[in-house]
Amino acid sequence: MTHLRPDLPALDRIDTPALIVDAVALHSNIERMAQAAAARKVALRPHAKTHKSPAIARRQLAAGAVGICCATLLEAEAMAREGITGLLVTSPVVGRDRAARVAALNRVSPLTVVVDHRDQLDSLKTAIVAGDPTLGVLIDVDVGQGRTGVTTLQDGHALARAAAADPRFAFRGLQGYAGHVQHILDPMERRAAVRAAAGPVRLLVAALAAEGIGCPVISGSGTGTHALDMAGPFTELQVGSYVFMDADYARVRQEDGKPLPFAPALYVLATVVSTNREDRVTVDAGTKALAVNGPTPSYFIGLPAGTRYAFSGDEHGAITLPPGSPRPALGTRVLIGATHCDPTVNLHAGYFAVDPMGAVTALPIVGRYGAMGTALS
Amino acid sequence: MTHLRPDLPALDRIDTPALIVDAVALHSNIERMAQAAAARKVALRPHAKTHKSPAIARRQLAAGAVGICCATLLEAEAMAREGITGLLVTSPVVGRDRAARVAALNRVSPLTVVVDHRDQLDSLKTAIVAGDPTLGVLIDVDVGQGRTGVTTLQDGHALARAAAADPRFAFRGLQGYAGHVQHILDPMERRAAVRAAAGPVRLLVAALAAEGIGCPVISGSGTGTHALDMAGPFTELQVGSYVFMDADYARVRQEDGKPLPFAPALYVLATVVSTNREDRVTVDAGTKALAVNGPTPSYFIGLPAGTRYAFSGDEHGAITLPPGSPRPALGTRVLIGATHCDPTVNLHAGYFAVDPMGAVTALPIVGRYGAMGTALS
Repeated sequence: MTHLRPDLPALDRIDTPALIVDAVALHSNIERMAQAAAARKVALRPHAKTHKSPAIARRQLAAGAVGICCATLLEAEAMAREGITGLLVTSPVVGRDRAARVAALNRVSPLTVVVDHRDQLDSLKTAIVAGDPTLGVLIDVDVGQGRTGVTTLQDGHALARAAAADPRFAFRGLQGYAGHVQHILDPMERRAAVRAAAGPVRLLVAALAAEGIGCPVISGSGTGTHALDMAGPFTELQVGSYVFMDADYARVRQEDGKPLPFAPALYVLATVVSTNREDRVTVDAGTKALAVNGPTPSYFIGLPAGTRYAFSGDEHGAITLPPGSPRPALGTRVLIGATHCDPTVNLHAGYFAVDPMGAVTALPIVGRYGAMGTALS
Repeated sequence: MTHLRPDLPALDRIDTPALIVDAVALHSNIERMAQAAAARKVALRPHAKTHKSPAIARRQLAAGAVGICCATLLEAEAMAREGITGLLVTSPVVGRDRAARVAALNRVSPLTVVVDHRDQLDSLKTAIVAGDPTLGVLIDVDVGQGRTGVTTLQDGHALARAAAADPRFAFRGLQGYAGHVQHILDPMERRAAVRAAAGPVRLLVAALAAEGIGCPVISGSGTGTHALDMAGPFTELQVGSYVFMDADYARVRQEDGKPLPFAPALYVLATVVSTNREDRVTVDAGTKALAVNGPTPSYFIGLPAGTRYAFSGDEHGAITLPPGSPRPALGTRVLIGATHCDPTVNLHAGYFAVDPMGAVTALPIVGRYGAMGTALS
């Protein structure tokens, strides 16, 4: 059970709508994943795309993570500015300008990037100058998601060989992210999909081993499949959503039938701003506060079970109470459980972690698209 | 035709994905709406919820707008800090803390708020102190959207009378925003809906007039119905989307069968970051760059007609070219027409207006939820 209540004094001075983190659940989620990885001797490089918060990344490192994944170079630059180390950019970095930024970032914070095309390696080679530290490189392997990554063994092989042969690069191994597999609910089906996704990675590892090129790092996985992926071939986990625990993941059962061992940690604090309708009240949290590409919010703190939420435009939502329940008064504050955490976080400029003692920590969100000062550099 | 091209030198130094504004289309949209309102002698108070940009608000004021609407108090505070005047907060302001912020803001920039409940007036009365300027008040009337506003003539009457009788308030009139009517495609159906939506407003105006309470301001309307609403009862238009012209509005035909006289002005600049698939390429703009709650993007600059886009996660999209078209090379930049502008803008921390001479103006986006420094004040 969360200690969060919408009427906590700690929340009084926070304007609504606001993104609220249960600091206890967050801490517990970070610890549990760290312990699970340590027990299986698998490295943890949690993904910052979920939280976009240097403070949370710092907690993950303190719990034993070897580094932090970033979805974009912008995110990595923002994390590095805040002292976050062991950064891996999990999307291919394309073009001369970005290659120059990679080289610049690598000078201040040792960096690993993924590549899926020879042109990317060539741009990076041009950007790295004499005296620069080596740049970590993983080959991005398409394991079925059809988004980025090499799609043939031959391409992967050639790219890995080129990276391994160049003294400017520290060839580390492979990345294979199976995003399409994370939310499969049936354990048998999920296990089969995980095995299928690992196939291209295993093949490429074997092909490279045959000519003496080792892959010390095989990076991938996600919250939905982390328990399976720890059995191999992955040597490190890029898990992200576990810190907040998306509502959709609450439906995922592990092989033993148990739910994932993480607790919901992300809420939107909203205020009842109109009460003139018999059947519902209006709150000040709509599609600009809660991601629409996920399950409709259905978990509330401060409202009875059976309460329903519906989006009512960019700035409002309609809350319908179960029959017989009194309508909340104007000004009542409610906590709405976020259902798709990554895009919900991305809607906000910052959030607030609240601990059981009532302490509030403001957490700025970094690396957002169009952040001025970084985009026009 | 837009002057924008993805290979403009002006765009070279902008990191992708980035929100790009066609400065000419923006200017033309602002001028056209201003001229239409002036010709009909209707006031224009454009809605900043679309652009969240003080610089664009300033352009709207320069073109003759009497002020600017804001969806939230946070937005109004941010606009006032940048010198934007004539602010109207179009959602009811609830609670003691927000009432205090309203009174504080009204001391530096004359403000109008809407109310739909007696408690809101009471909070505002408590917040306004001796020597304060009067606070502008409109009664928010629910014209069928079922979100905010008074729902009965009696409630509206009582609230207006209370506001008009109190020397702390300058009672200005009514607000009736028919958001549910804006996107009706059929002109006959739209006209009937507009008439129905105006009903409660007309009734309340008449009831108040009968006892000598005038309503100099009747504020409402939107881009889809502005031409109809200018015929009355509205004295001022809260139009927002016309500045960028949502794709969905391109389907709206006016009564004469013509499209709305506004041009698309908002694009996302993206880069091709993976080309390893036969049937498509991957770009670096996904659900964190383009709003998902609108039509799927289908208008591109730099790609042939018949190109299709599909979301491929938070940070990526899949671009499929028409049969026979060569695939764009790695690093190619494309401009993707934004389809639902308000929530797309809200995803970004800032954007870039590009003029035909190649000048780029960086436009910070203000008033986002959780902006640090304002939320915990």
